[in-house]
Amino acid sequence: MWADRLVRDLYAEICKIPLIDPHSHIDPRRPAARSLDDILGYHYYTELAHSAGMDKAPLAAEASPRERDRAILNHLDRIDNTAQYGWFLDICRTFLGFRGERVTAADCDALCDAADRIMNQSDWESQVLARTNVEKIFLTNDFDDRLEDFDTSRYVPCLRTDDLVFHLNKPEVRERLSQATAVEATDANLMREALAILFQRFTQRGAKACAISLPPHFAPSPVFPEDLSTALGELFRGEADAGSRAAAAHGVFWMLAELCREFKLPFDLMIGVNRRVYPEGVHQGQDLFDQRTSLLQYAELFNRFIDVVFPISVLTSGQNQELVSYSWIFPNVVTNGHWWYSNIPTFIDRDLRARLQAVPKTKQLGYYSDAYKLEFVLPKFNMYRRILAQILADDFVRPGVYGERQAVDLARLLLRENTQRIFGV
Amino acid sequence: MWADRLVRDLYAEICKIPLIDPHSHIDPRRPAARSLDDILGYHYYTELAHSAGMDKAPLAAEASPRERDRAILNHLDRIDNTAQYGWFLDICRTFLGFRGERVTAADCDALCDAADRIMNQSDWESQVLARTNVEKIFLTNDFDDRLEDFDTSRYVPCLRTDDLVFHLNKPEVRERLSQATAVEATDANLMREALAILFQRFTQRGAKACAISLPPHFAPSPVFPEDLSTALGELFRGEADAGSRAAAAHGVFWMLAELCREFKLPFDLMIGVNRRVYPEGVHQGQDLFDQRTSLLQYAELFNRFIDVVFPISVLTSGQNQELVSYSWIFPNVVTNGHWWYSNIPTFIDRDLRARLQAVPKTKQLGYYSDAYKLEFVLPKFNMYRRILAQILADDFVRPGVYGERQAVDLARLLLRENTQRIFGV
Amino acid sequence: MWADRLVRDLYAEICKIPLIDPHSHIDPRRPAARSLDDILGYHYYTELAHSAGMDKAPLAAEASPRERDRAILNHLDRIDNTAQYGWFLDICRTFLGFRGERVTAADCDALCDAADRIMNQSDWESQVLARTNVEKIFLTNDFDDRLEDFDTSRYVPCLRTDDLVFHLNKPEVRERLSQATAVEATDANLMREALAILFQRFTQRGAKACAISLPPHFAPSPVFPEDLSTALGELFRGEADAGSRAAAAHGVFWMLAELCREFKLPFDLMIGVNRRVYPEGVHQGQDLFDQRTSLLQYAELFNRFIDVVFPISVLTSGQNQELVSYSWIFPNVVTNGHWWYSNIPTFIDRDLRARLQAVPKTKQLGYYSDAYKLEFVLPKFNMYRRILAQILADDFVRPGVYGERQAVDLARLLLRENTQRIFGV
Repeated sequence: MWADRLVRDLYAEICKIPLIDPHSHIDPRRPAARSLDDILGYHYYTELAHSAGMDKAPLAAEASPRERDRAILNHLDRIDNTAQYGWFLDICRTFLGFRGERVTAADCDALCDAADRIMNQSDWESQVLARTNVEKIFLTNDFDDRLEDFDTSRYVPCLRTDDLVFHLNKPEVRERLSQATAVEATDANLMREALAILFQRFTQRGAKACAISLPPHFAPSPVFPEDLSTALGELFRGEADAGSRAAAAHGVFWMLAELCREFKLPFDLMIGVNRRVYPEGVHQGQDLFDQRTSLLQYAELFNRFIDVVFPISVLTSGQNQELVSYSWIFPNVVTNGHWWYSNIPTFIDRDLRARLQAVPKTKQLGYYSDAYKLEFVLPKFNMYRRILAQILADDFVRPGVYGERQAVDLARLLLRENTQRIFGV
Repeated sequence: MWADRLVRDLYAEICKIPLIDPHSHIDPRRPAARSLDDILGYHYYTELAHSAGMDKAPLAAEASPRERDRAILNHLDRIDNTAQYGWFLDICRTFLGFRGERVTAADCDALCDAADRIMNQSDWESQVLARTNVEKIFLTNDFDDRLEDFDTSRYVPCLRTDDLVFHLNKPEVRERLSQATAVEATDANLMREALAILFQRFTQRGAKACAISLPPHFAPSPVFPEDLSTALGELFRGEADAGSRAAAAHGVFWMLAELCREFKLPFDLMIGVNRRVYPEGVHQGQDLFDQRTSLLQYAELFNRFIDVVFPISVLTSGQNQELVSYSWIFPNVVTNGHWWYSNIPTFIDRDLRARLQAVPKTKQLGYYSDAYKLEFVLPKFNMYRRILAQILADDFVRPGVYGERQAVDLARLLLRENTQRIFGV
Repeated sequence: MWADRLVRDLYAEICKIPLIDPHSHIDPRRPAARSLDDILGYHYYTELAHSAGMDKAPLAAEASPRERDRAILNHLDRIDNTAQYGWFLDICRTFLGFRGERVTAADCDALCDAADRIMNQSDWESQVLARTNVEKIFLTNDFDDRLEDFDTSRYVPCLRTDDLVFHLNKPEVRERLSQATAVEATDANLMREALAILFQRFTQRGAKACAISLPPHFAPSPVFPEDLSTALGELFRGEADAGSRAAAAHGVFWMLAELCREFKLPFDLMIGVNRRVYPEGVHQGQDLFDQRTSLLQYAELFNRFIDVVFPISVLTSGQNQELVSYSWIFPNVVTNGHWWYSNIPTFIDRDLRARLQAVPKTKQLGYYSDAYKLEFVLPKFNMYRRILAQILADDFVRPGVYGERQAVDLARLLLRENTQRIFGV
């Protein structure tokens, strides 16, 4: 793939590092795909196919999975330029024995059959994990997940808190919270009590992070307990207006940060996404961002919780430039992966070069898969590792900053050791 | 020019693709230059020379063209580092037989004489078109252009609507609208009637797009008919305040989108320019941008007009990163060229890499010339093609994503076929 | 360091150009370091070490310098990936005879001893200046600096005005102003009189620029004299609220621009920094930026002072893209260096490519050191020159835009001649 021996050698060495994947959406009860539909159902394919002209009928729950796959494959020739298509091709080649140059609708039956055969082997999960060389994978768990029926040393629980901060106005969320904690969180003290129960349960079951995704305009600030109590009271009585919803969101968010301190959990902030910008889009293909956001909005949070580590994910190179500077200055701000719309080679390349040149190397969490199925961990990390190898060659080894071994040591920090140290795994 | 055989070969193949230029300011009654002054009068040269210290006296209408050219050439040694100078040198070499290494004021008379001789040949337009390998060129037509006296299959009309949206407060614009439509558009219904007449006329005469440039803060939203009527009434009575001007702008803009749907015209949005930021600047050299803008401002429009195609032009790499994501998600959003201040190699390089890696290849209009004279189509497309060839080599052919033939097929989509399909030419 | 002969040759030629450094914080009474502590005390090291985990105890005034140095060196292995570490290594090698591959805490005593020996030579300043090949260095002088006891042809005074614009609410600043001018500046006329005294003194003593750093939200606008008088009156009586502080800031800023016109001084604007974002950070390691800022905020200023040159420094690549366009249009806007958080190779690379491709070459001040000690001028300019050599090779010489000699001529403009012409030195 490369004419360049140095890059090739670095890549080969980097691939030997056993991965720890610090963020995914893997379902630990069903981590691997069982069909091609589990692969092509990933929103990257449904949304790109839809964007390129596919209507949504084949995506309906009642549609036949194979016809859905055929419909998506039928649109691949419109998106075969994309990095996302590259991951799919990598999966077909690595896991499904595909030998062709490119995948088209003509390959549908053969691929589906291969997937049915291969992915239903009893040890398929283990095979994928082994071939991927991944040791631990962080999850995204609902706050009411009991975390009881999977191997939490392999699949590391992570308390996802979007619902608690932004969706308490939904009765079902309040109901889930009551069910999960046996607390009716109608004032600040009770909310604190309920959240502490969740933190207790999660950390006892091996959770290593708290996480949330945040809209571009969100600016954390503390809320007086009495104001939070008023807001929560209104929410639980179904009388909340925009003002009390905002007060609850800010108050609960701040409380989560306090609990992260108390329970010594890093608080992953994924900053910048607006939900449902294209509400008629496919499932999980509706959210977009607004570049007009700043980490300055988080200055008070970072200052007040200097003893909480904040791994930060951002969506644009503009935000990344801020992130580089904020993590260079704030001891508790660390860079975290290449998220979603910025998880594209050219953006990774420019964002990663900047981080490697200006942020302490011990404060960088290199990459996470964000995967829903195990099979995606390998192609996504491969994409990242190729870029990393190129940058290490260009910016470190060739200018004499590092020797090859040191460059690989840096990669090991990014892909493994920083994650171990920062999250305590 | 390149040591690299692959890039050279790709460039050569790409240059064989007959161009369709989806946006220009060519005057179809006088498409080619007739003198060096027609070339150097392009605002890129007058504004750069002025910025570099030339006073505006030689630019006055009454000044001698040759002395104006001499004044500009006299400042070329201050701007010979720029891409814009590169286009001029390319024109001198390709069309005027210039053989030197660089153009200076000493070349003024020779170049002017050559231009007078060469550009006044009776078949000059045809010669330029043939050498440029361009098949069709989109225009920018005033709404009251009768489109009656030129070849609309070569020069494709396009309804430019800035005046209708942003300048109805000027009596002459209202007068032109009345003249063009025989309708006094003093309320919402009458405005709709007037605009429909324009759309009817334009599409009958082969128009293939509606277009507008928009300031950074503009956020389209529908206006109630009665509010629009009130606003238009006040405008036509000369009593409009800022509020009714804004209501009229938003109401007319929304109506244009409705008519694009009705007449099946793509609606080119050129987003981000503030007019007259430097009002003492040279003609057309007064406008600048504000990076603080977001495509989120257009979410409602994109959602409400999912059946209208919006080719989007932006001015910054920050906006481009949004555009990549919005066109990856919204079926009706397509990327369009590299506009104005972002039409510089390094910005094209980074913006184009991102588009090619993340946007369906069928949704990208590669490049347009934005030219006022035919002679500029070639050097500008050359600049783009060089960058495109390099990216296809780096990101597609060398990593094994595409073979060379497929890479050229992708270029053909960008330079020709997407334009044909999206605009129906 | 480079396999590439062309880049190496260009770099070698560029290094021969005697530098003029148009912005530093050198103390002309003590320009060179006298110990390793003077080097490692630079905020880039204290803030990165602190960010990477060093507590602030060794930074206290009463701590032992050698133990402070040891503490910082002890953290170098966490930041040896950074550009900033690269400057330090360059200093150790160039000035302290260091021969190792990397500096660790084990080198502390040897380096401290070497520094004590070498940097206390009586002609050390001259040695550093000679080895750095720097002819003149601009300073950052407090407005009440008498400028009386140093060689102002070597160390060019520059009137720094942050205190006058943003800190007049502090009694000590008002007191310093009164002391320096013998004027109690309690109204607009008196302020004008006081400021004119400062401009008179500074220009008589060879000052060549006025300078200020500005927060991201600042938008200059004129203030009516009576409003400024009211605001200054309140300030001097200690009764100013936020409104009058803002009025004073805007009024004094505008007055400074008027005095720059009157005294023919360029006005360096360093745009985008928020002070004390991390107030518990180390000294000078507390400030950060907000990407949401635009040069549009300065349009009125640029228009009203078309005869004042504004060298502009920015902090992000987003701002840089604006700066490229604003300096391409406004005759009085010039690009100035690569400031602070954007002074990192990958940001310099992208920002500089854009400037070189689109801004008249006579309007670019290439680089400044921002140094506090002379020893930093060399490694910082080396970093810049390496990038410049690479860009000149890639974007100018290899594509045939310039020959090698012309490329070096362009470098000479950036590093020397533009500074001479624009500031009149």
